[in-house]
Amino acid sequence: MVLLLAVVRLTAADSTVEKWSIFELELKGPAEGNPFVEVRVGATFTNGRTTVEVPGFYDGEGVYRVRFMPESTGEWRYETKSNRWDLTGKTGTFSVTPATKGNHGPVRVFNTFHFAYADGKPFKQIGTTIYNWLDTPDEVQEQTLKTLAAAPFNKARMLITQQPTAYQEKFPPSRWPFAGTPPNAWDFTRFNPEFFRHYEKRIAQLRDLGIEADVILFNPYGKWGFETMDAASDELYIRYVVARFGAYRNIWWSVANEYDFLRTKTETDWDRIGRQVQQYDPYRHLLSIHNGSIIFDQTKPWITHVSMQNGAAVEEPGRAEMYRGVWRKPVVYDEVKYEGKTQYRWGNLSGEEMVHRFWCGTVAGTYVGHGDYFATVKEDTWTSFGGKLTGQSAPRLAFLRQILEDSPPQGIDPIDKWQDPNTGGVHGLYYLTYFGRAQPTAWEFKLYKNGVVDGQKYAVDVIDTWAMTITPVAGEFVTKKLDGYHFVDATGRTVTLPGKAGMAVRVRRLAADGTPVKTELPID
Amino acid sequence: MVLLLAVVRLTAADSTVEKWSIFELELKGPAEGNPFVEVRVGATFTNGRTTVEVPGFYDGEGVYRVRFMPESTGEWRYETKSNRWDLTGKTGTFSVTPATKGNHGPVRVFNTFHFAYADGKPFKQIGTTIYNWLDTPDEVQEQTLKTLAAAPFNKARMLITQQPTAYQEKFPPSRWPFAGTPPNAWDFTRFNPEFFRHYEKRIAQLRDLGIEADVILFNPYGKWGFETMDAASDELYIRYVVARFGAYRNIWWSVANEYDFLRTKTETDWDRIGRQVQQYDPYRHLLSIHNGSIIFDQTKPWITHVSMQNGAAVEEPGRAEMYRGVWRKPVVYDEVKYEGKTQYRWGNLSGEEMVHRFWCGTVAGTYVGHGDYFATVKEDTWTSFGGKLTGQSAPRLAFLRQILEDSPPQGIDPIDKWQDPNTGGVHGLYYLTYFGRAQPTAWEFKLYKNGVVDGQKYAVDVIDTWAMTITPVAGEFVTKKLDGYHFVDATGRTVTLPGKAGMAVRVRRLAADGTPVKTELPID
Repeated sequence: MVLLLAVVRLTAADSTVEKWSIFELELKGPAEGNPFVEVRVGATFTNGRTTVEVPGFYDGEGVYRVRFMPESTGEWRYETKSNRWDLTGKTGTFSVTPATKGNHGPVRVFNTFHFAYADGKPFKQIGTTIYNWLDTPDEVQEQTLKTLAAAPFNKARMLITQQPTAYQEKFPPSRWPFAGTPPNAWDFTRFNPEFFRHYEKRIAQLRDLGIEADVILFNPYGKWGFETMDAASDELYIRYVVARFGAYRNIWWSVANEYDFLRTKTETDWDRIGRQVQQYDPYRHLLSIHNGSIIFDQTKPWITHVSMQNGAAVEEPGRAEMYRGVWRKPVVYDEVKYEGKTQYRWGNLSGEEMVHRFWCGTVAGTYVGHGDYFATVKEDTWTSFGGKLTGQSAPRLAFLRQILEDSPPQGIDPIDKWQDPNTGGVHGLYYLTYFGRAQPTAWEFKLYKNGVVDGQKYAVDVIDTWAMTITPVAGEFVTKKLDGYHFVDATGRTVTLPGKAGMAVRVRRLAADGTPVKTELPID
Repeated sequence: MVLLLAVVRLTAADSTVEKWSIFELELKGPAEGNPFVEVRVGATFTNGRTTVEVPGFYDGEGVYRVRFMPESTGEWRYETKSNRWDLTGKTGTFSVTPATKGNHGPVRVFNTFHFAYADGKPFKQIGTTIYNWLDTPDEVQEQTLKTLAAAPFNKARMLITQQPTAYQEKFPPSRWPFAGTPPNAWDFTRFNPEFFRHYEKRIAQLRDLGIEADVILFNPYGKWGFETMDAASDELYIRYVVARFGAYRNIWWSVANEYDFLRTKTETDWDRIGRQVQQYDPYRHLLSIHNGSIIFDQTKPWITHVSMQNGAAVEEPGRAEMYRGVWRKPVVYDEVKYEGKTQYRWGNLSGEEMVHRFWCGTVAGTYVGHGDYFATVKEDTWTSFGGKLTGQSAPRLAFLRQILEDSPPQGIDPIDKWQDPNTGGVHGLYYLTYFGRAQPTAWEFKLYKNGVVDGQKYAVDVIDTWAMTITPVAGEFVTKKLDGYHFVDATGRTVTLPGKAGMAVRVRRLAADGTPVKTELPID
């Protein structure tokens, strides 16, 4: 038995980083052989109370990196671990300063069905889909960022391995995640650092725009051979991606898009992959799996929220609520068909219908994702390749987002779920009733009993979800018990509506001073 | 160490029973102490290929019984096991003969989402609810059986422990499952054999009427103290009930009604109880748990099918389908509100609405349960106490049942689930499109592509679900491809409809001889 004493050297890495930003450790090590598989490197970070094991990765040319996202302020110390002596036992200290403006940390599940940033700020998800936007010429990518900067979206779904399209025949991708040559001569044991450096640059740009990057690890679209990777290759890939991207606070993991359309993997495979992502990610980023037509078992403990494809489910609020109660996790309807005019029935929603689906999801206490399938970039679309938005829904989703940002931070929940599916809110405080495709000319002021007693005062606004107007109704509404279920206005007031589709009413409790009751939660 | 040799005596029990009927072993044993907890008795039954361990029970006055439901014909042998020597090592043989007419065995899950008897005969569930019918004067019970004999129902939900009601103040129950005195001086370690003998008589009568007894083990309604039973009492009760009732082939177990309204038990308790029922039941009877407002985790392996309370879910077929895909188990909407005119919103459905909900569930590939909440027995109702049916839905459910009995044995599944929720059937063979509350004046003959090619011939019937008429449309419809999704009639035929609610069309593939294609599965 040989006792080895590791030589501990203080490195020059001592420095200062902001909470929820990235402390990156760069190490020089072996470049011979295949470092991607032969060399394991990582580090343990501790502040004396919390210890975090962080996987590192090989970045080519003898350079290894360990990226750490600190989750609390103060002094931190690290020590590297590796199966190579020259990468082992490196230690150092650094200081973590408070988050500055615009940095709210990663998004977490909040209040069972909702999301909030780590600092407590609610995250009201208004997502979009730009699957292959990193697979386009750089000027298109820059255009996409410009479009996003002016758009309402705070989450974007994006693939890692490319989707083969006709577009690619004209503009073949310049970067691939693996070493090798397209279409299918890949070495799944060697990654292409340049591909990942580029991808990371874009993740950081999304972060700086306030957009969460919902990164899709696997997809069924490849004819590149990625779908035939074996379990060992899968794990190598997962570990590499998670080690590289995990320290970005705006990362969400999507195990797969349309998992069930990838015929080469079983549900057991997906469960293994999900557990591995969870295992390698020290930051517990949001983690989901997106379905084609077969719903995955969302009770798996690694699944933080439901990422659902089912356009029919948000055609009316009563449907949207149903999946929510099943799993008691947040439900994001990430694919509800796309706004467009294609011959495919998954890509021909009107702008009105797309906005309608967001509102249906909203009042049911769930979240919705957008897609735009009008040709915009040469012969392809926003949802495939980014570029510009063509559809009419985006401004209306910006309008919805503003309403959500002004809504109670605890989130909108069904008020009376199996009786009045069109109303979401917070009992006794805030109500949003969306009338959908109905065209009512009046709405009787009527609140479900929970949280309501006689004599409460409320203000009512009439909302036109398409024209983007919020019209306050003059005067107060004062509650009076009607029967065993409801309260109405003491003077029987009714709200006049314009007899068109896409209308909503917002009801907010008034404080003694006549302004809506404050509902902010404390932010630490 | 003492070696004991059990004395094996051949008993007089050698006899003959029919497959899926009950072979009952009667044993004399100790009557002193508390045999319910102190004496364990059971028997092992074997035919040389299959060995079944069957729990027995104490039936009072020194009599012990072991009931066995043989699942295959031929010679069987038993040997008793007990913690008392005089109940141990009794052996015997008996012969099991084939099932006779009307005996199809227990109902099992079939084709993932459906049910069939053990002999392969499809079971098209049309359930009803008679919670406390065994808690009424005997003449009311007899009346209930007469009503059931003429009603369409093939499953009835019923409680074991009584629900306290105003009715009971006038007609207090004469039998209780436990020894002791109402309202709450019970000995949970001693059962009342007379209660169970009566209950069994009624189970057998339901069986002879072709009705499955969906027996509810626990409920939240008691103010009898049953809800405060501890885990040991729960298990003793479960074992006793399962040992007594399990050999009846028409038993289904419902762990609880509105489990979440029983505030004294946690979800972990319910999972334990479900696993215990499964463990003690050698016949693997259908086993479910019914919710109030919080949906139970239906992925639990002991749950054979979903027993759902959610009336809103069957207001339209698009909703009804949603839970089905989640668990990939049969879904029975066992409580969809009741037909009635009460002030409670769970008991004021019109007959039309009740029938509508059955049809919504049906075309979505699910099953529905009925309730009738008109006062019929003194001041109480069919669904509480049995007696007579008052509502208007029952004849229409008989009509629906006949349509289901004539439908493909593999069951009705959604044809194009998230695009055309109103159509269920079997691709290329059988289609049932229910138009719900819409009032169309025409239906274009149009079938989803799966299973369809050009030139297939179909017959169409127009169904009035309320008037109970089936009107064949003259002539054949011949398929011709329309686009990437659908086939229409080659000559563009459209079916005329009467412009009223509650209509459906049935489309059946025609064989070469011009009759609908036979779809029977072989029955063993």
